[in-house]
Amino acid sequence: MSIWNEQLGPDSDVVISSRVRIARNISGYPYTNMNDINSLTNLMEELNNIIDKIKKQLGLTWIDLRNTSPIDKLCYIENHLMSMEMLGGDLQGALVLNKDDSLSVMINEEDHLRIQSILPGRQLEMAYKICDDFEQRLGTKLNYSYDEKLGFLTSCPTNVGTGLRVSAMMHLPALTQTGAIKKILEACAKMGVAVRGAYGESSKAEGNIFQISNQVTLGYCEEEIIENMLHIINQIIEKERNLRQKILNSDKISLEDKIFRAYGILANTRRIESNEAMELMSWVRLGIDIKVIDFINPINMNKLLVELQPGNIQKRAGGELHPAQRDEKRADLCRQMMKKEEV
Amino acid sequence: MSIWNEQLGPDSDVVISSRVRIARNISGYPYTNMNDINSLTNLMEELNNIIDKIKKQLGLTWIDLRNTSPIDKLCYIENHLMSMEMLGGDLQGALVLNKDDSLSVMINEEDHLRIQSILPGRQLEMAYKICDDFEQRLGTKLNYSYDEKLGFLTSCPTNVGTGLRVSAMMHLPALTQTGAIKKILEACAKMGVAVRGAYGESSKAEGNIFQISNQVTLGYCEEEIIENMLHIINQIIEKERNLRQKILNSDKISLEDKIFRAYGILANTRRIESNEAMELMSWVRLGIDIKVIDFINPINMNKLLVELQPGNIQKRAGGELHPAQRDEKRADLCRQMMKKEEV
Repeated sequence: MSIWNEQLGPDSDVVISSRVRIARNISGYPYTNMNDINSLTNLMEELNNIIDKIKKQLGLTWIDLRNTSPIDKLCYIENHLMSMEMLGGDLQGALVLNKDDSLSVMINEEDHLRIQSILPGRQLEMAYKICDDFEQRLGTKLNYSYDEKLGFLTSCPTNVGTGLRVSAMMHLPALTQTGAIKKILEACAKMGVAVRGAYGESSKAEGNIFQISNQVTLGYCEEEIIENMLHIINQIIEKERNLRQKILNSDKISLEDKIFRAYGILANTRRIESNEAMELMSWVRLGIDIKVIDFINPINMNKLLVELQPGNIQKRAGGELHPAQRDEKRADLCRQMMKKEEV
Repeated sequence: MSIWNEQLGPDSDVVISSRVRIARNISGYPYTNMNDINSLTNLMEELNNIIDKIKKQLGLTWIDLRNTSPIDKLCYIENHLMSMEMLGGDLQGALVLNKDDSLSVMINEEDHLRIQSILPGRQLEMAYKICDDFEQRLGTKLNYSYDEKLGFLTSCPTNVGTGLRVSAMMHLPALTQTGAIKKILEACAKMGVAVRGAYGESSKAEGNIFQISNQVTLGYCEEEIIENMLHIINQIIEKERNLRQKILNSDKISLEDKIFRAYGILANTRRIESNEAMELMSWVRLGIDIKVIDFINPINMNKLLVELQPGNIQKRAGGELHPAQRDEKRADLCRQMMKKEEV
């Protein structure tokens, strides 16, 4: 379990988590996409040596992805600690995690270093601070590829400059149900802000969960990028909350019916696919956030979000499962997480 | 509450209730469809006087339908104590009930007398005995229209002879789900047995509940008609039970999933229409009958079957309700009936 799905953060009724990542490359090494295996393994060794010295102090774990099982890798991806690109079997890469997974560093992804922090709720500044601290600490031991005019150099030109991407995972059921999300998407596109599903570029917004992230990394300083994103996120939070209230005022019973039916199915199903579970969980999460449901610990919704994914289900089961078997295990999990308790 | 939805009878896993009715007309009075108001009221008076003398002994209540509210009438219909035909406002009719509604007598329906008994489960013989006893008792005080060759005369020729209709209300989810019901329907049609929904001629088989009844009343004695129907009912029971077992053996989890999802929705909904509730109840009833659900009193399913109908809902609420309001009350009722208890 990672801090973002173990604790609730500010504005957690709309913002599930905040994520910041900084892309860096190390001078003297070719970019990872050159696929120079010698250079990649040398870099891994150098970074391992550097990190080894601060490991204890920062509570870090070095995970060599060359010896990591596909199911474990899938779990890191589902926990948002690692990107889908690192799933490949011939990858010369590593993942560094701190104790509560608030810091995760990918080595030899698209860039040599992807320093990332995810925190629960709306905490972009703090997430940036965690990344920045680590980046500066490493910066005293090695030289980042840097250009006076362009800033930090990255493998893909879209990341050049700050190498910074900030994003928020937001639950937007009211905006989605009413169709008002369309305007948000249009406005975001105009402002250079990308809106995607929870699992990156190609993923659909399952369960009304959207990832809002900056596209522009060049021409603004880090503080401006974060401030700008916070401004957009705050506006979306406000719109979502207003719409929820509007729906509650106009037909409370209908909304309650949808919420409780979703709860009833999740609390009783014996076999459920991931996308249906995500959809029903969206209603239950909304029910908790608008205080229609007061007997489920809200943190369960974040736990379930990760644990119902195929990798995590197989990890818990201790081995590979057919999709039908996963659907049964997922149902067991849903029932368990929907148990009534005093909150 | 009537005995058929307050107690369980034999083979109640498939047979909800057994019903027998005897049609009789009184010599010297024109048939009710002649609409001779004087004659209809005179007959009501004569029958009231006769019944008055045995009222105490048999625990009977005389209900003058001319002074009965539409909601109360609807409740009698929904409880299967009275036919839809007696809902009309200008009706010169009455209904006689004993204490547990195991005997109900309609006066001035299609025939002067429709003596009816409904009992829980498969109890056609006993239901017939209750009707027959009452018919004989009245027969000592008045003369039934009778023809040496044809037998008892009735308003509609389809009832001539014995005036007997026997039926069973059966829950056939496995036969319906697998489509095997088609063959049953065909075989019944060939044997002169009608298959309808729970509420008579035009009603669909909502919630997989079918009413199986004899069509032929002439040319067989009462015992033969009952024996023949029992034979057919027993065969249907066996087929339904075998199919349930077969489905359980082939994909238990799928079946359990359907059953528990239905339970989950009924136990949590805030607004539900009658036909959806009937459909979901069918799954829960099946779950109870095949022992997948062990925390709901089976009798609740029979109670709910009646109480979720519009008349009963309005009766409980104490007045007329809009359909949307009924859907809310129905949901309250479903949740209440689905409360877990030790059975």
